[in-house]
Amino acid sequence: MTITTTDFQRWASAHQQRIEVQLKAALPSAELAPQRLHQAMRYVALGGGKRVRPLLAFAAGEVTRADVGRVAIAGAAVELIHAYSLVHDDLPCMDDDVLRRGKPTCHVEFDEAIALLAGDALQSLAIQLLAEHRLADDPSAQLEMVRLLAAAAGSRGMAGGQAIDLAAVGVTLSLPELEFMHIHKTGALIRAATLLGARCGAALDAAELEQLDRFSKCIGLAFQVVDDVLDTDATTATLGKTAGKDARHNKPTYVSVLGVADAKKLAGELRGDALDALDGFGERALRLRQLADFIVLRKF
Amino acid sequence: MTITTTDFQRWASAHQQRIEVQLKAALPSAELAPQRLHQAMRYVALGGGKRVRPLLAFAAGEVTRADVGRVAIAGAAVELIHAYSLVHDDLPCMDDDVLRRGKPTCHVEFDEAIALLAGDALQSLAIQLLAEHRLADDPSAQLEMVRLLAAAAGSRGMAGGQAIDLAAVGVTLSLPELEFMHIHKTGALIRAATLLGARCGAALDAAELEQLDRFSKCIGLAFQVVDDVLDTDATTATLGKTAGKDARHNKPTYVSVLGVADAKKLAGELRGDALDALDGFGERALRLRQLADFIVLRKF
Repeated sequence: MTITTTDFQRWASAHQQRIEVQLKAALPSAELAPQRLHQAMRYVALGGGKRVRPLLAFAAGEVTRADVGRVAIAGAAVELIHAYSLVHDDLPCMDDDVLRRGKPTCHVEFDEAIALLAGDALQSLAIQLLAEHRLADDPSAQLEMVRLLAAAAGSRGMAGGQAIDLAAVGVTLSLPELEFMHIHKTGALIRAATLLGARCGAALDAAELEQLDRFSKCIGLAFQVVDDVLDTDATTATLGKTAGKDARHNKPTYVSVLGVADAKKLAGELRGDALDALDGFGERALRLRQLADFIVLRKF
Repeated sequence: MTITTTDFQRWASAHQQRIEVQLKAALPSAELAPQRLHQAMRYVALGGGKRVRPLLAFAAGEVTRADVGRVAIAGAAVELIHAYSLVHDDLPCMDDDVLRRGKPTCHVEFDEAIALLAGDALQSLAIQLLAEHRLADDPSAQLEMVRLLAAAAGSRGMAGGQAIDLAAVGVTLSLPELEFMHIHKTGALIRAATLLGARCGAALDAAELEQLDRFSKCIGLAFQVVDDVLDTDATTATLGKTAGKDARHNKPTYVSVLGVADAKKLAGELRGDALDALDGFGERALRLRQLADFIVLRKF
């Protein structure tokens, strides 16, 4: 069976649109008080981004034949957590960045206090969304989904990864240390997106869950390696965010630790490991395989 | 039946200790990576505060004969949300405060970035806690508890109240406008604490839930009115946080809108309304009544 690029692009585009619709519906109207806060939340969550995490949720949902309406809600919840993390990450006390997705960052467009509160409220909204719609036949399984997303966002997940990142400024990290940082900083949420998408459908057995988990870990790391390479290669204009910022901030990256050539090689190896993990799923994992390629090969 | 002050104090003290134990167990160890983040989370969440919200949860749990272990978890979750809001509220871009509960605020003791992440991670931990333990016999009811807390924390609740508060600096508010602000800023979480405590036990009928809700709304407002009066009367030393800060920041308060005498009168009226709302609950609402007195009469 030959799958053309066009077929995947059509699938991705349709599901990106679906997430946009879902996010628009979930976010409070900009006319609703407090207006500036709601404007800021919509400003950061709508109309931008590749929506990689929701796409992973949709693709994993195909593995378990999940209802696509349910996966859209789970995917939107993960994307709201991602959006909150970007807003806080861009604040002056963190990366102090002024450009994101080709637009002024939230605290530049609004102000720091509103950006802080918008991030806070986006996290709350993500959880609210995940709790208020029926996403699993068994409500206990849905509680486990809430727990999984909260844990992925928290101090042993994404927020913890940010803290490790802060502590790493100006420090030389080994490859395992760098990996530990990224497993938390970006990996935790990518893993959550994949697992939540799958959990919207039929239950996987322990071995299948482990394989899906292995896929998501490999792809999460690959995503970060590719980001580091792109950050070195690209210009601010093509990237839509400030390029070369990690190097400027004296932060360790896969490129600074390995060099560009070996970082690209590592991304390829991680892609291979990710694809291997999907072997048992057959055609149901078609979109996950295509996403792995999309993530790793996007700009090389 | 005569209830001495000592009896309530013993009850409150025992339940404050229980919450401290619960929070200590829920917070990641300070030895666990990332250590500074976990140290900061423990610094702000442990060893301070009157624990009014958890006490409300315990008292409401007595109305529905809830298991005290379950209520402790729900109360700790609410307290973690409260702790996160204090950390973010004290940041330089918000109230820029240096003193909280007699100690340096989190960003002074650590730094701004860690304070930001500690607040973020405390919110995640609150949700994780609420989702990972069995708190209701029916898991659907527990999902509704998660939804309730997330909504109370979000842009239509506490975070929204903060945004309204920001927009009100230097503005003359009417009493209804001030009330609208506080129903969100402090009221939403006090209401959530009360309702979550009750929901850990036997189901209330719609009329009972409405009465409990009326109680929590009145007591939430009374709490804020008393805070405003204390902020005017007290010194920084007795308050443990910077006194007179709202007036200095040119923020409207019940005292600036009504004057001290009428603000005290309003607090008394709200207490009366709160107590009236408990009429149908008999002796099961004893602790809620005592808490109403504790909140309103604490320092007048």
